[in-house]
Amino acid sequence: MKIYDWHIAPNPRRLNIYLAEKGLKVELVEVGQEDLSLAPWFKAKYPHAMVPMLELDDGTMIGEAMAIARYFEEIHPAPPLMGVDPRDKAIVEMWEKRANEEGMLPASELFRNTHEKFAERGLPGAADAIPAIPELRDRGRARLTRFFEKFDRQLAENEFVAGKRWTVADATTLAAVDFAGWSDVKIPASCRNLQRWYDAVSARLSAKA
Amino acid sequence: MKIYDWHIAPNPRRLNIYLAEKGLKVELVEVGQEDLSLAPWFKAKYPHAMVPMLELDDGTMIGEAMAIARYFEEIHPAPPLMGVDPRDKAIVEMWEKRANEEGMLPASELFRNTHEKFAERGLPGAADAIPAIPELRDRGRARLTRFFEKFDRQLAENEFVAGKRWTVADATTLAAVDFAGWSDVKIPASCRNLQRWYDAVSARLSAKA
Repeated sequence: MKIYDWHIAPNPRRLNIYLAEKGLKVELVEVGQEDLSLAPWFKAKYPHAMVPMLELDDGTMIGEAMAIARYFEEIHPAPPLMGVDPRDKAIVEMWEKRANEEGMLPASELFRNTHEKFAERGLPGAADAIPAIPELRDRGRARLTRFFEKFDRQLAENEFVAGKRWTVADATTLAAVDFAGWSDVKIPASCRNLQRWYDAVSARLSAKA
Repeated sequence: MKIYDWHIAPNPRRLNIYLAEKGLKVELVEVGQEDLSLAPWFKAKYPHAMVPMLELDDGTMIGEAMAIARYFEEIHPAPPLMGVDPRDKAIVEMWEKRANEEGMLPASELFRNTHEKFAERGLPGAADAIPAIPELRDRGRARLTRFFEKFDRQLAENEFVAGKRWTVADATTLAAVDFAGWSDVKIPASCRNLQRWYDAVSARLSAKA
């Protein structure tokens, strides 16, 4: 098997962080180009045109970072990084989804609708041109403020995003916070719990994966 | 346990469809109001202010439709509606995520940024005002066209969204297609495979859940 990767990009990153915490090494194939686009041969092979993508030895192509993580969690259950019992699994999935929809997606929206290289690529995976919408800059910033504050409240009472253990929800949250930083949006000084968590998870080896 | 529900809303709907296919009945508490807002007591109880929300007997509150579905899938594994082996589970999760991010979220974006009752509520779960962005109407329509065409290609070769069996990915896709209809965006005539699938899943009892 191999993973088609764009090593600097946020969605591949959350998978790579997860795999590092899991202690798994998978062959990576870099498909990002210097002009911030995906290699044409990759888009021809995989018309969804998104990364990461896991190709199994039987040729099955699995996209979406968390679907790929699910595959590895099923074949290598230890250490459990997606919850340990039904209640805990639901809590991890809830916080991972919040990190994605309230952190990753707004950070993506902000970046894609402000960066000049994405003027006609307002959405990921599009074959056709999607023009940027400048108003999404303000909305993206407002969404990220809510994201920081929500996660700060959660981290006031929990060491990690989904409770006492490091889970895949921490991978997505870390990728989201750093992705926001691409647009110069940083953790507000008032969010001390989030900052404490960020410093701790950023110091783990997996953050460099 | 009980589920806080807004019975006409798309996110609760995909959970209710899933539960019906699972053969499970859970107490539902309606928290939607006629003016298309959530009951104030519910927002006070659950500041994330989104539906559906599952409250367990120990007081744990679990949000996000798919996190709630995960809980029930874990405590009632049969019939399996989220995949039967590692590869299949990953494929179901991949298609469920596509249905959500490429169908549900654009349908939500289109509806919230065009409907007059949402002029200051451009995003779900917000306490603060988020003004609508009219350009998102065109973008939402473009995204939904891509969603219909992508799922039409998938359904040309598969009876259901994630393969041979009805899965939770069908629940999210059905909720997304019907949510698009709220903004008068219908399956294009060219998407015959999607229409065949839509007619079949809409005829199941679960579609009325």
